[in-house]
Amino acid sequence: MSRTYDLDRAHVFHSWSAQAELSPMVIAGASGSEVWDEDGTRYLDFSSQLVFTNIGHQHPKVVAAIQEQAATLCTIGPPLANAARSEAARLIAERAPDGMERVFFTNGGADANEHAIRMARLHTGRHKVLSTYRSYHGGTQTAINVTGDPRRWASDTASTGTVHFFGPFLYRSEFHATTEAEECERALQHLDHVIRNEGPATIAAIILETIPGTAGIMVPPPGYLAGVRQLCDEHGIMLIADEVMSGFGRTGAWFAIDHFDVVPDLITFAKGVNSGYVPLGGVIISEAIVETFAHRAYPGGLTYSGHPLAAAAAVATITTMAEEGIVENAARLGTDVFGPGLAEIADRHACVGEVRGLGAFWAIELVADPETREPLAPYGGSSPAMNDIIAACKKAGMLPFANFNRIHVVPPCIISDDEARRGLAIIDEALAIGDAVVA
Amino acid sequence: MSRTYDLDRAHVFHSWSAQAELSPMVIAGASGSEVWDEDGTRYLDFSSQLVFTNIGHQHPKVVAAIQEQAATLCTIGPPLANAARSEAARLIAERAPDGMERVFFTNGGADANEHAIRMARLHTGRHKVLSTYRSYHGGTQTAINVTGDPRRWASDTASTGTVHFFGPFLYRSEFHATTEAEECERALQHLDHVIRNEGPATIAAIILETIPGTAGIMVPPPGYLAGVRQLCDEHGIMLIADEVMSGFGRTGAWFAIDHFDVVPDLITFAKGVNSGYVPLGGVIISEAIVETFAHRAYPGGLTYSGHPLAAAAAVATITTMAEEGIVENAARLGTDVFGPGLAEIADRHACVGEVRGLGAFWAIELVADPETREPLAPYGGSSPAMNDIIAACKKAGMLPFANFNRIHVVPPCIISDDEARRGLAIIDEALAIGDAVVA
Repeated sequence: MSRTYDLDRAHVFHSWSAQAELSPMVIAGASGSEVWDEDGTRYLDFSSQLVFTNIGHQHPKVVAAIQEQAATLCTIGPPLANAARSEAARLIAERAPDGMERVFFTNGGADANEHAIRMARLHTGRHKVLSTYRSYHGGTQTAINVTGDPRRWASDTASTGTVHFFGPFLYRSEFHATTEAEECERALQHLDHVIRNEGPATIAAIILETIPGTAGIMVPPPGYLAGVRQLCDEHGIMLIADEVMSGFGRTGAWFAIDHFDVVPDLITFAKGVNSGYVPLGGVIISEAIVETFAHRAYPGGLTYSGHPLAAAAAVATITTMAEEGIVENAARLGTDVFGPGLAEIADRHACVGEVRGLGAFWAIELVADPETREPLAPYGGSSPAMNDIIAACKKAGMLPFANFNRIHVVPPCIISDDEARRGLAIIDEALAIGDAVVA
Repeated sequence: MSRTYDLDRAHVFHSWSAQAELSPMVIAGASGSEVWDEDGTRYLDFSSQLVFTNIGHQHPKVVAAIQEQAATLCTIGPPLANAARSEAARLIAERAPDGMERVFFTNGGADANEHAIRMARLHTGRHKVLSTYRSYHGGTQTAINVTGDPRRWASDTASTGTVHFFGPFLYRSEFHATTEAEECERALQHLDHVIRNEGPATIAAIILETIPGTAGIMVPPPGYLAGVRQLCDEHGIMLIADEVMSGFGRTGAWFAIDHFDVVPDLITFAKGVNSGYVPLGGVIISEAIVETFAHRAYPGGLTYSGHPLAAAAAVATITTMAEEGIVENAARLGTDVFGPGLAEIADRHACVGEVRGLGAFWAIELVADPETREPLAPYGGSSPAMNDIIAACKKAGMLPFANFNRIHVVPPCIISDDEARRGLAIIDEALAIGDAVVA
């Protein structure tokens, strides 16, 4: 093995992992939708890593912008102002709904959600936060507590004022619904009941991924988010749209919320804002909440808030995505390539329970039994079949994104149609492993 | 005003601030110990921004390393391995005490402390964390709850398992001590009492800034940290040394803990590790805690853990600091320039209650009354005299670091003796404002 591998095993502690059971692939370089290892073996990146390289790897314009900003001014503290930060804030606010003009910058999605929740609590004077079971909002304490998925459990003190509810998901309906319209109506009714039973005046915020990401890419039915907005308005509750994974082109729009004609009070972002070339996240804030902190200090901050190098990468990423039509390309990929391609895969494989998504943001729901919809791996776990499917994809030269019983199709938004079809073909072949379980 | 200023006021939400009462200085460039605004007016940076540019601004070797890494591989997800991350982990582990070989990378100091506390809780199976009132540990929920200073108050739910105690600080002794030895003994006795009354078996960790930073740079008396270590050993409590501000050369050693011959269980870092050129933090982990997560997944992570660009900046920073003797220079500055220079300032000014520190890490404690030691600004607040002192420093061409009633002397560790003396002279002159209050 290589020096990099040996040093990794000796000195790097990896996230979400048992340290003695790891054998990480060493990545030496990357370009567009491909990465390669130290031997030069190339892999199609169908994961965008952790769904963040929306502009693809090593886009020359973003690399050049980082190099130029590094030569000028790598860093400066948050109390000062600088050109890269100002321009990044302008470009982000320009893409947010009207009335959301201010950006608080953080290092990533977790602290963006921490700060959004703090703002909502102080603005409303209330403490509770409602979030869904099928969600991921980050790894720091408040962010992991509002998270719904099993990554929360080890850190959950159950004393944080978080209340979890079920969002709409027709394929696995909590509400015994049989149509999208029925699922929507019943999910809103359920949320209304939770709010009334928790006490509306105790609830600061509802935090939702506009389209849940790692939890399964469940596009909400028409009317659901408008219904949530209405409940929030009725009770003075802040609506936080977590766009960390769904924002900046992933769904074929700048923000996923653009598909639903709903304006939240706070939007959190990270990942796609600069494709993770430099760590960056943030909160876009409605004027009413900014007003709360006009003459009263906002009690929160971090050393690298509005980091010039990260901001310069965001300016270059957003500008390039606009110039090169990358958001439109994501929309087109969804309509022309992934939508039809995944529908064919669903038709061909007994183990595919459902495919769903839009843009460059799709999930394949795998089942061991199409009738009972028993997942191919249990909630929070894995299974030999899932492990074999993942291994088959890698062996065929592709890095998949997998979670429990699902494979997500989340490549860079700049992926070519040929590459996209190649990735789908690899999945198509690997799913024979799942079909064997069904049979 | 400039476009950058106007866009900042329209679109940037600033940390720890009332948004309508801001008028941030626009910084256009920086080099070494200086920054300059858009008009080319230069300022001596006696703050290292938020005490993080230990290597100075725009060090050409670090800038070049960022540019080279940007050209090769800006980013890759945490489950993979890469050369920059492996090498950064090696260089950090090499400087940590023996038996601390593994590094978990985060984006900054707050999430480093979040993860260190999570590791300690899961390793011990206990929940409570002890920390001092005079401390700052970061802005996310667990980090702000273990923080002692007033920035905690707005986010404190008092349900997080944090217990605060008083550390040693002879000038404002909580224990009515009159000598350093007495302060040390009584502070350890106090900690022992808190541990026994909270229940030793309920306490996962004690988290301490090795030398408290923003809270006032109180160098612990000889024997204090060894005494804390002994109490931790006696009760199976993990000792977390927060070296976010004190690490990587600031005190004239790689880690402040090196001055005290004590080995903690976890060390957290950020800031100086790469002088904040790219956001980076982390946790250095003892073998016993790594072993806990050998065959059991560590339940924590973040998208940018071990970010290649940030890691490459750390490799260049650490290597350059070693090659150029920057840590040794910080030690020499403390002994030859700041120690004697600040002692003279203390002699000359009635408003100086105490000067204290080491390396490039000093505090000037300002008082309205030398007898009662009444601070020149109240705890958690400011005062006209403090505001005037800060304004006088800026007017004279220097950016100071101020907190409540203190001015900290925390320039880059590469500052020249001439620049250091120039900064001290500016402070010397500004302190006439404080003397007028005493008179």
